[in-house]
Amino acid sequence: MDIRIGVVGFGTIGSGVVDLVAKNSKVIFEKTGINLIIHAVADLDFSSDRGVNLDGIKKYTDGIELVNDSDIDIVIELVGGIDYPLKLVKESLKKSRHIVSANKALFAKSGPEIYTLAAEKGLAVGIEASVAGGIPIIKSIKEALVGNNIQEIRGIINGTSNYIMTKMTEEGKTFDEALKKAQELGLAEADPTLDVNGGDASHKIAILAALAFNTPVLMSNVYVEGIDRINLNDVKYAEELGYVVKLIAIAKDRGKDGIEARVHPMLVPMDNQLAGIRNEFNAVFVRSDYLGDAMFTGRGAGSFPTASAVVADIVDIGIKMRDHVKIAPFISPGSKERNFIPFGDTQNRYYLHFTTADKLGVLSKITGILGDHRISIASVIQKESDDQSSVPLLMMTHEAKESDIVSAVDQINSMTEISKKTVIIRAL
Amino acid sequence: MDIRIGVVGFGTIGSGVVDLVAKNSKVIFEKTGINLIIHAVADLDFSSDRGVNLDGIKKYTDGIELVNDSDIDIVIELVGGIDYPLKLVKESLKKSRHIVSANKALFAKSGPEIYTLAAEKGLAVGIEASVAGGIPIIKSIKEALVGNNIQEIRGIINGTSNYIMTKMTEEGKTFDEALKKAQELGLAEADPTLDVNGGDASHKIAILAALAFNTPVLMSNVYVEGIDRINLNDVKYAEELGYVVKLIAIAKDRGKDGIEARVHPMLVPMDNQLAGIRNEFNAVFVRSDYLGDAMFTGRGAGSFPTASAVVADIVDIGIKMRDHVKIAPFISPGSKERNFIPFGDTQNRYYLHFTTADKLGVLSKITGILGDHRISIASVIQKESDDQSSVPLLMMTHEAKESDIVSAVDQINSMTEISKKTVIIRAL
Repeated sequence: MDIRIGVVGFGTIGSGVVDLVAKNSKVIFEKTGINLIIHAVADLDFSSDRGVNLDGIKKYTDGIELVNDSDIDIVIELVGGIDYPLKLVKESLKKSRHIVSANKALFAKSGPEIYTLAAEKGLAVGIEASVAGGIPIIKSIKEALVGNNIQEIRGIINGTSNYIMTKMTEEGKTFDEALKKAQELGLAEADPTLDVNGGDASHKIAILAALAFNTPVLMSNVYVEGIDRINLNDVKYAEELGYVVKLIAIAKDRGKDGIEARVHPMLVPMDNQLAGIRNEFNAVFVRSDYLGDAMFTGRGAGSFPTASAVVADIVDIGIKMRDHVKIAPFISPGSKERNFIPFGDTQNRYYLHFTTADKLGVLSKITGILGDHRISIASVIQKESDDQSSVPLLMMTHEAKESDIVSAVDQINSMTEISKKTVIIRAL
Repeated sequence: MDIRIGVVGFGTIGSGVVDLVAKNSKVIFEKTGINLIIHAVADLDFSSDRGVNLDGIKKYTDGIELVNDSDIDIVIELVGGIDYPLKLVKESLKKSRHIVSANKALFAKSGPEIYTLAAEKGLAVGIEASVAGGIPIIKSIKEALVGNNIQEIRGIINGTSNYIMTKMTEEGKTFDEALKKAQELGLAEADPTLDVNGGDASHKIAILAALAFNTPVLMSNVYVEGIDRINLNDVKYAEELGYVVKLIAIAKDRGKDGIEARVHPMLVPMDNQLAGIRNEFNAVFVRSDYLGDAMFTGRGAGSFPTASAVVADIVDIGIKMRDHVKIAPFISPGSKERNFIPFGDTQNRYYLHFTTADKLGVLSKITGILGDHRISIASVIQKESDDQSSVPLLMMTHEAKESDIVSAVDQINSMTEISKKTVIIRAL
C-alpha cells in the first residue's frame, strides 16, 4: 500500500528522512508491504544543497499549504520551536492527516492538547524521534514494557551535554573549550542554551514521565539544572573519587508520595553502565517491576538516527492505515493526575566542594552543621593548596534530603572561613 | 476486551506469567483496554508450590487438552524441548489459537514451518521471550529498525555463560567453580550442556539473523563453540592485555558474499560496551545503516523478565484481535534465501597462546609460519615460567582469515618445540 508523506522542515532531519526513503523504501516494502512515497517537502528556502534529490517531489514554501495538499496521508513536522509547529499540527489534524514529529519542546508543552485533538479524530501521533533520537524508547515503554509498572527512568538524553562532559572528563578541556569543539562538529547549535542549561533534556524527560507513569506532566513539575556551571576542577575531583560527571534526567515513581521529575548534573560511579555512555551517545535506563533493569543506548540525535525513528513511526501508522485499525489514543484512557514531589523533598547522595581557610576547627564546624541537618558523611578529602586561605575540602555524603543539604550549605556558606560558594553536585 | 490465555508448562516462566497477570492485569487494562485472563494452565504436576494462586484457573495435566479448550484465545507454550512443543504448537494453530512461546530451540529449528502454518491461518506467533529474555530485541528489529538495513548483530545472549565468565574474570574462579556457583544460584540448570557449549546462544542468534536479514537460517549455518574449554589462565592473560573473555554471538551481513552466523568465546576490549555486561545480564548490539550503533541490555532469563516479554507479545496479539487486524506473517513475504559464509572464511583478530620450549629461534619459527599464512602480529608477550620446557608465549594478531589461522596453528602445533596444543581465541 502506498503511504504519501509530506515533510515540513527540510533541515538535517528532513533531508535524512528523504534520503532514507530514497535508499531503503524498497527494503521497507519487502518487509512490510508499505510503500513510502515522499509526496511533498516544505521549507522557506530550497536554495542550499542538502545532498538529496527532490526530483518528482512537490516543494512548498508554506507548511500550511503542504498540510492542505489532500494527497498527503502523514505530515512529518520537523520545524522546531513551538507556536508555528503547534498551528501546523492542529491544521494537519483538522485536515485528517496523521502526525509524526521530532519536536520535544512542542510535545512536552502541548502534548496532551495534541493527543486529545488527535484522539477525537482517530488520528495517530508518532513522536519516537523526539526523545533520544533513534533509540526506540517510546515504543519500548508503550509496548514492550506494557506488562510492567515502571519504577524509574534515568537517562542521558542530551547528546551535546554528554559530549561536553566527555571531553572535560577525558581530555581535561574546560566547559568553554568543549562547547566550542561540539559546535565545530555540529553537535551543538550556534545558540546552545537549551542544551547546556538542561532545557532540552527536561522536555524529553517530561515526555517519558508522562508515558511511563500514564499521567500529564507540566514543565513546571520538572526541576532543571544544566551543565553550564560545572567547573573542570570538580570533574577532576570527581574522577579521583571514582565518578564521572554526567547530565542525568530522572523520572521516578515514589508511589503514594508522587512522582519525581528532574534534570541535573550527577556524579555517576565509574562502574555504573551510564558512566560508559560517551560523547554524543544517549542512553535510557529503565527499572520496572517485572523486566527489572534494562538499558537502551544509541545515537540520540543527528540526521540519520532521527530519520530512522521518524520512519519507524511512519511505517507503524502506514500499517494501521492499511489494516483500517482504529487508532488508540497516545495517552491511554486510564491516565491519572499524579502528585509531583517538590525537588526539595528528593533524596540523593551529594558531592560537596567547600573552599575553606586551612584552619583548625573548620572541618568540625562544617560536619557539625551537616549533622544538625541529618546529613551523614561518607568520605572526606582535603586537597593540598598553595593558598592557605582557600583550600578545597571535598565531601561525599550518604543519602540526604535536598532541602536539608540546601539549608546546611547556606549556613556553611555564611561562615567566615568559607571563601567561595560551595559547589553541590548530586551523586547517583 | 477479554483475552483468555492458556499456559502450557507451569515452571519458572509459566508461574511468572500467572504472577504478572494477577498483579498487573489492572494496569495493563488501564493502559490498553485489554483484559488478560489466565483461563487455564497445563502441567504434568501441580503438587509443588510455585508461589502463585491458581484459584479459578482451570488445570490440565495434558497440554493438548488445554489447546482443545475452545475458550482459549492464545496458547503460551513454555514446555521446552522440541518434539512435544512442536506438536502442541501445530495443534494450537489447527484449533485457531494464536501462539506465544519462549522456546528458542523450537523456533531456531522449526520457526519457518510454524510461521508458514500460522500465516496460512492468519494467526500470530510471538517469540520475544525466546531471545534475551525481557529485552525487546525482536520488536526492535521488526518495528523500530524497520527503516534500516541491519549490518551486524553482536550479542551476549546466554546468561549462564556470561555469569561464569564474569566470575572467572572478577573472582579468579575456575570454570568448574563458577559453573557450580551458577547452579547454586539457579542461573544454570543441572545439565548445563546447552548453555556452556554455545548451543542455546546459537539458537538465539539463528532466530535474530533470520529476522534481521529476512532469510531462513538453518542451525547448520551457524558455527558454534562454547566457553567450556576456556582456561582460567587465558582469562588472566586476556585481562593483562586489556580484554575480557565473553561468549559472543555474531550475525553479520557481508553483502554479496553472504551472511555470517557464529557463536564462540571472544576477547572483548575493556572499553567496548559489551565488556561491561556482567553476570547473568544479556546485551544485544545492533549496527544498521541509519540508526547506527545501538545496544539493548537487560536480564536475559529468569521468571519475571521472561514473563514481561511473554505478556508484551500477548497484549500485542490481544490488541490485534480486538481491532480485527489481519495478522502479518512473522517472516515477511519479501524473505530471500541468502548465502552463508563458511566459518573458515570469516575474519577476526586472534589471541594465540603457544606453549613452547624457551629456546632461541622458536619465536622466529612461529612468526615465520604465521607470515607464510598472511597473518601479521600486533603484539607479543613472553611470560616467565619456572618450567623452561613450557613457556607461555602470547600473541595478538591483526585481522586474519580463520582458515589461515587454523592451518598456521596446525603447522605450529606439529613443531617439536611446542609442548601443548595452542589456544586460539578470537578477538573483537
